Parts: sequence; structure tokens; C-alpha cells
Amino acid sequence: MKIAVLPGDGIGKEVVPIAVDVLRTMLPEAEYVYVDVGHERFTREGKAMTNEDIETIKKCDCILFGAITSPPKKCYRSVILTLRQALDMYANVRPFKSCSISPYKVDFTIYRENCEDLYCGMEDVSDDQVLSTRKITRHASERIARKACGHPGLEMLTIVHKANVLRSCELFRDVCIDIAKKAGVPYEEMLVDAMAYNLIRNPSRFDVIVTTNLFGDILSDEAAALIGGLGLSPSANIGDRYALFEPVHGSAPDIAGKGIANPIAAVLSAKMLLEWSGHRAKAEFVQGAVDRTISNGILTPDMGGKFKTEDVGLSIVKHLESQ
Amino acid sequence: MKIAVLPGDGIGKEVVPIAVDVLRTMLPEAEYVYVDVGHERFTREGKAMTNEDIETIKKCDCILFGAITSPPKKCYRSVILTLRQALDMYANVRPFKSCSISPYKVDFTIYRENCEDLYCGMEDVSDDQVLSTRKITRHASERIARKACGHPGLEMLTIVHKANVLRSCELFRDVCIDIAKKAGVPYEEMLVDAMAYNLIRNPSRFDVIVTTNLFGDILSDEAAALIGGLGLSPSANIGDRYALFEPVHGSAPDIAGKGIANPIAAVLSAKMLLEWSGHRAKAEFVQGAVDRTISNGILTPDMGGKFKTEDVGLSIVKHLESQ
Ligand SMILES: CC(C)[C@H](C(=O)O)[C@@H](O)C(=O)O
Ligand SMILES: CC(C)[C@H](C(=O)O)[C@@H](O)C(=O)O
Repeated sequence: MKIAVLPGDGIGKEVVPIAVDVLRTMLPEAEYVYVDVGHERFTREGKAMTNEDIETIKKCDCILFGAITSPPKKCYRSVILTLRQALDMYANVRPFKSCSISPYKVDFTIYRENCEDLYCGMEDVSDDQVLSTRKITRHASERIARKACGHPGLEMLTIVHKANVLRSCELFRDVCIDIAKKAGVPYEEMLVDAMAYNLIRNPSRFDVIVTTNLFGDILSDEAAALIGGLGLSPSANIGDRYALFEPVHGSAPDIAGKGIANPIAAVLSAKMLLEWSGHRAKAEFVQGAVDRTISNGILTPDMGGKFKTEDVGLSIVKHLESQ
Repeated sequence: MKIAVLPGDGIGKEVVPIAVDVLRTMLPEAEYVYVDVGHERFTREGKAMTNEDIETIKKCDCILFGAITSPPKKCYRSVILTLRQALDMYANVRPFKSCSISPYKVDFTIYRENCEDLYCGMEDVSDDQVLSTRKITRHASERIARKACGHPGLEMLTIVHKANVLRSCELFRDVCIDIAKKAGVPYEEMLVDAMAYNLIRNPSRFDVIVTTNLFGDILSDEAAALIGGLGLSPSANIGDRYALFEPVHGSAPDIAGKGIANPIAAVLSAKMLLEWSGHRAKAEFVQGAVDRTISNGILTPDMGGKFKTEDVGLSIVKHLESQ
């Protein structure tokens, strides 16, 4: 297996090496291909990512991604959005599972459509008005619904939309209901505003959530707060050919360089890579090592601890090696 | 003053009468004009609201609104969206203030643009694809930014957008920054996903939030959960000529008819009506009566009590009359 490694900017450069340590321990035979992309690269060389970079990445099986700093003014197209679309990684899968320090008890997964919606890039810009197009297709709705319905152990699918206002949401909802019925999957539907409310009021009732791109973006950050922070939330961007694994958090310029970034989201993203590539037992080892590190109190400041990125990484790898 | 009263459906019919009792106590000279609109009217007469209804409403100064049930299939245009647009009520103002039973300590107000965004109604529908237009204009962004900057006692304006992806958000943000600078108002900006996160992680840091229509819809339901539920969240839809006051909650078919709906959101909406019409001292009396009712434990089930809508209403009116 060939894994492209894109640490990106800021704390991406600090947490990805820990995730790579974990992968090297579990998959010593894999090959790692480093690609330098992002805002720092842009500042240095005038490009955030080149077409050759994309070709290099396409020669790999999957990608481990850190985080990239948004430029203050839009001087290049977002690297992560470009990759999601260029590699057709249409399912953004984000599991949220409480740990001992979480303020809420939750255990659910958000399936976010990852290629269209207001992210389609169609905008009509003039000085006094901008019209952005929200594109929702039957095809894209079908494939994300199928992915969500295939979630292992699914008990209840919650379809999140705003069909009381948007015909595009009506299409998304109707397609999801159709696929759920055909798959024999129990489902319910919920308006996105009600969902934002119920995530806090009644978070443990959710199991698998499927929604459109931008709603998924907002709800998954809200969900990350429920489990105790972005430092704990991994994600997978999955297509039929490629997959990219990344922490939900950004490059966090405010804490970058201090060595205190929480590597757990990146490590759990590596765990998702192991699952995706069929190494389920190894993925469980990684989860176990993370759980033990947390219950031993080896925590970075965002989790109330005083340990460093490195300490957390060493603890996780030590647990893995002793298994 | 002439007040149009639109109880609507479900618990709208149960909470609006309490709010009217409060208004009659505070404004005995006002005239109340009842207009029957909504899903029940539609079922009975084939119309949810007629043009004559709108004309009747336009002859009033302001509106007290309950809630309307969404039809399962879209057979009529949303009454509240029609009114917001027909009466050009462009600012949706939603204050969130913790009370003794709130899980989080917050005290902030969301100013939500109320007439455009994906709510503009421009959709291109075909069988396999729907394109919905998100319209953001300089004009509408300016007027909501001005309203927010005029918030009494404002200390910090948080401008919420998704300008890292959307040019329409870039326009909104740039206009808001411009107006804030001109008004000499301290401001910060925040991505909508970060906002959904920080509302939970750090809710007490917010003061006045300004955002686009759909983001405001989602974030205000999230905020309602922080203060202890939709039963406590009032709102005002304000234009240059008209204003409409409504609880943020819906018609709640699941509890309608049981007499247990929480009337506080509707009563606090009446309080906002008093403020809007210049009766500031009376508005404060209403707030005081609500606070005392809560601290005396006269609470409906959603707040952990076992009192009825009526009991809460009687308690509030009794406190008002004894002042
Ligand atoms: C960086 C940004 C473009 C991205 C998104 O909006 O999808 C991020 O917020 C995410 O959730 O992965
Ligand atoms: C009923 C619905 C159309 C409305 C909206 O989306 O604006 C409601 O959710 C609100 O927040 O007032």
C-alpha cells in the first residue's frame, strides 16, 4: 500500500507525524509519499498545490492529510476541496464517540455528502450581489445515502434536510428515504435547525446521520464540541477509488509551533485508514491505545492536561508496541 | 396601536392567548385583530393565508404570531416566509439569555438576515437535479449589519459567514466589517462551523452575532438548546414599517391540545413587541414577571415542572398586576 502524506500547515505538521508513527507501527510494509501542500508552500513558491502534486497523489492508494491555513484573501482554491472533487471522494464520514472526558454521551456517525451543494463552485459575482448555486443531484444523493445505509451495525438513519424551504432538500430527502426503504433500514427525517437543537438536547438518541455538504460541515463541528473538542474528531473522505483521512480540526495558527496540539484526531484518522484498508483488528488496537492513553491522563491542554503532542504520541505507540 | 394576532396551529393556539393576556394587561388601549392562518385553515378552506389576510395585517402596526404546521408535501408557500417578505421584515432578532434552569450561561443576541439567502425562492427544478440560488446582496447585508450595530449596549459584534468557500459570504462579511468600522463598533469574524462549535465550547464570550438567513436559522436553534429549550426563546422580525413577534418554536403537534406548552417564548415575544413600540419600562415588567414565575418553580414539563400553560400564564399576569 502507498500512502500519500500531506501534513499541510500549522499543527498539521505536528499531529501528522504522530499518525504516521502509528501507521508505521501497524503497517511496516506500507510506503509513505510526502507531498508538501498548503499555505506555507504558497507563500514560498506561489502555489498551494500543483497538478503534478495531484498526479503524485493519484498514484497512491490513499491519503493522510493534516490541515491547511485559509489565506486571508482567496488567492488559491482550497486544497482540501480540490482534492475531494478531483479524487471524487464523495462521502465524508465523521464518527463521534464520547470518551471519559466528554461532556455528553454520544456515539453516532455523520455521513456528509462531500462534492456538491454550495461547494460546487458555481457563483455569479457582481459588485452589489452574489448568487451562489446550491447544486443537489439525484446521483450524488443516492451514493451518499447508500454509503450511510451500509454503515456497520446501523440501527437508525436520521436524514437531515431543510425540505420545508428548499426543493433541493426535498430531492435529497426523497432519495434518501427511497434508498433507506430499499435497504430495509429504519429511518427518520429531521430539519437541520431541529437537528442543531436535538444534538444538544438529546444527543444519545442518534446513530447514523446523513446530510448535505454544508449542513454536514456545521453539524459536525457542533458534534465535535459535544464529545469534548475538535482535538478528538477524525474523518474519512471516501470515494470508490481513493480515500483521504484527516482530523476535523484546522491548522490552529494560535497554538502552532508550541508542541501542544492534540494528536488524537489525527491518530484516529489513521485508525479510519486502517479500517478502510481492511485492517480491522489493527484499527481496534489503535482505538484501544488511544483509550488507554486518555484514561491514563496523558492529555494535551485542550483536554485539560499538561502533556505535549509528543508525550501523547509516545504513549499511544508504546501501548501499540506492547500488544 | 393595532396588533394583528395570528395564533396559527397547534400550540400556537395555546401560547398566543397567554401573550395576549400579557399585552392586554400592559397595553389596555391597544386593538387586537385576529387573523386565522395556517395549516388547519388550509385543511378546512384550501388556503393557508389569502391576499385579503395580508391586506388586513398590513392595516395593523405589528403582529403577534404563534406557529404554523408545515404540510407533509409542499402544497402552500410557508405563511411566515410570505409575511417576512411581503412586509419586508428584514431583521430577525433573537435574544438568548440564560435563566436559573439553563445548562449554559449565555447572554447574546443573534441578528439574522431575514429576506434573502437560500430563502429567496429561486430554484431550478428537474427530475434529477435541483439548483437552488443563494442570493446575497449588498443592500440586504448593509441593512442587517446596521441593525446589529445599533444593538443597545453592544460590546462585540461577531460576524458569522463561510467566506472560505463562498463569494456570497465574502460580500456579506466585507459589508458587515465596513458598517462596523464606520459605526465604531468592535467586531470579529467567525466561520459558521467554528461558530457552531464555539457556541457550545465558549458560549459566554458572545454578545451580538450577525449572520445570513439560513446560518441564523440553524445557529438560533442551537442557541435555544443552550438556554434550556425552545420554550424560552422569543424573536422579532423587524422591518422599517412592520414588525412581527413570534416564539422560535414550532406548532409542536406532539404536545398540542394537552395544555402543557410553555408560554414563556410567546410572552417574551410580547415583551419584544413592547420594547419595539417604545414601552421599555413595561417590557422590563414582563421580564421581571417571567423571571419570578421561573424562580417560583411554576414551570411546564419541558422545563422540568408539572404545571400547565394556564398556570404559568396566570402566574405571569398576577405578577404584572401586582406591580
Ligand atoms: C476548510 C473547509 C473548506 C472545510 C469545509 O468547509 O468542508 C472544513 O471546514 C471541513 O469541515 O473539512
Ligand atoms: C418555519 C421555517 C420556515 C422557519 C425558518 O426556516 O426560518 C423557522 O425555522 C424559523 O426559524 O423561523
